[in-house]
Amino acid sequence: MVTRSVFSEYSVIDFIKKRFQQYGNILSPYDDAWGCVVKKKHLVFAGDMLVETTDVPPFMTIRQMGFKSFTISVSDIASKGLSPTYYYLIIGLPRGFGWRRFRELVEGWGEAINLYGGTLMGGDTNESPCVTISVVALSLSNKSPIPRTGGKPGDIVAVTGTFGETYVGFKMMRSLDRLPESLRKRVLRKLCRPVARLREGVALNGVAAACTDSSDGLAVSLYNLIRGTGDGILVERLPVSKGLEEASKILGAPFSQMVFYGGEEFELVAVIPREKWRTAVKRVKHAGGSLIPIGRIIDHKGVWYRRKDGKTVRVLRSGWEHLK
Amino acid sequence: MVTRSVFSEYSVIDFIKKRFQQYGNILSPYDDAWGCVVKKKHLVFAGDMLVETTDVPPFMTIRQMGFKSFTISVSDIASKGLSPTYYYLIIGLPRGFGWRRFRELVEGWGEAINLYGGTLMGGDTNESPCVTISVVALSLSNKSPIPRTGGKPGDIVAVTGTFGETYVGFKMMRSLDRLPESLRKRVLRKLCRPVARLREGVALNGVAAACTDSSDGLAVSLYNLIRGTGDGILVERLPVSKGLEEASKILGAPFSQMVFYGGEEFELVAVIPREKWRTAVKRVKHAGGSLIPIGRIIDHKGVWYRRKDGKTVRVLRSGWEHLK
Repeated sequence: MVTRSVFSEYSVIDFIKKRFQQYGNILSPYDDAWGCVVKKKHLVFAGDMLVETTDVPPFMTIRQMGFKSFTISVSDIASKGLSPTYYYLIIGLPRGFGWRRFRELVEGWGEAINLYGGTLMGGDTNESPCVTISVVALSLSNKSPIPRTGGKPGDIVAVTGTFGETYVGFKMMRSLDRLPESLRKRVLRKLCRPVARLREGVALNGVAAACTDSSDGLAVSLYNLIRGTGDGILVERLPVSKGLEEASKILGAPFSQMVFYGGEEFELVAVIPREKWRTAVKRVKHAGGSLIPIGRIIDHKGVWYRRKDGKTVRVLRSGWEHLK
Repeated sequence: MVTRSVFSEYSVIDFIKKRFQQYGNILSPYDDAWGCVVKKKHLVFAGDMLVETTDVPPFMTIRQMGFKSFTISVSDIASKGLSPTYYYLIIGLPRGFGWRRFRELVEGWGEAINLYGGTLMGGDTNESPCVTISVVALSLSNKSPIPRTGGKPGDIVAVTGTFGETYVGFKMMRSLDRLPESLRKRVLRKLCRPVARLREGVALNGVAAACTDSSDGLAVSLYNLIRGTGDGILVERLPVSKGLEEASKILGAPFSQMVFYGGEEFELVAVIPREKWRTAVKRVKHAGGSLIPIGRIIDHKGVWYRRKDGKTVRVLRSGWEHLK
């Protein structure tokens, strides 16, 4: 029974899914979004909560906090190959938060809405012990959403960017000054002002068989892509960011660890059928991004990584999980 | 400038509304819900956050907390004359919350969904310093929502129930045992397990010119009904609950104060054109509720109360407001 398992984000979600039947959801219950069809229009929703005490590094500005609160929800919509039409905002602020900080927060929201498009339609304001911002993003579209799980053996697994900076950031939160200047800047940017891969996601609609974002870490994302299928994924090439050598030495962590277990990245991880690969690459490039192949779907369960020495090892399903 | 005003829930909302233009919202920016039209279907959203530290009395059970988290959003949808079709849940739980309490919470949600109808479609789980539950309720309907503001002089202002218990509850939070047994029970029930007037709201669709719920207190609700119009409201009859004499004595508060400034009630407050009054009463009765006339729209700005001694006094616009 799930209730005997560890009390954690995923087991809690499992429990809720089992308790409440879902009628009319066009996406899997494990998807990061849910959707329904109204007169041939697809309505897809995603909502995520940013909590000051758990999701905000100490050096993040209030404005960046506002921006990130939109990124986390937009990223889920983007992974469905859609763009946000409307936003609904539910905020909790501590008493005495005050106008100066509030205006900064609003500037961050404005920056995000300018970048991602869509309209803020309403919201709800509350008092809470720390800042919490939940952005519910709604996409209204003729296009159907890309599912989170899918594809067949042989299909290509690809990502929209490289990984590693957030791992370094979380591990060296209080000692970032030990890093070379340029790496430190990149780490800070990825942690404090992550950008959702919206244009890339929209470009993948129609060509990707499955897609998710990598906010819980690449390892978890890869497992999510094959969840419930009998298939697996073989990673043949690590999408590692450049210039991480110094950090790898300081942390004593191999690149594979930094790539698979960072989390809070907002790259998309997609499954592309081989025959659509060239179209996919072209489309994403046209959207201003890049699509990096990292492996393929295999008919052997689990997520595997073929190391440079030729040995294939299992990638453990672990990553960021709340409440654990 | 609004930014020079007090930092409070309403001024914060004003600031956001001014900053972000809203395109396509079929409801007023000051409404408790927002909506759009998709191929002649009305999509109306409302979302509210329950925060353990500010919205949960000490004697409320976890299950009741789960139930109330749905009531606060369903009440907003009900005040639009609609019923919820789908729910989206964003929860923040403290680490170590554990299965026992979580199962209770889920039972409360289940109880609410059984009562109010609709389907839980998805959600997001997070870690936060205290329990926060945001329920976003979505109504998909052919019917258009009742606006929050409207009506003309002569129209009847009516409520779906009586007021007073929550005022007593909030003022006597730590000394409820001083109340007569039956009143104490009623106070506890209104505080801990408030029920949204869903059937009444749906019955009012098509007959009410305006409607809101009374979660911020009756005084604020009355002001909201006439916001931005040149009209006012004259209250001629206090919808006071029975058996409040003892509490009135203990608190030294007249009935008018207990009725206007309670808050966290979930009665509907509606404006009904005179020619539709009989139909409205019949419909609400048929839905199992009652419609109590308390006054009428007048062409004189403000909210007024004609006391039993014949004197008319102004009702101050004050009530529950977060962050203040």
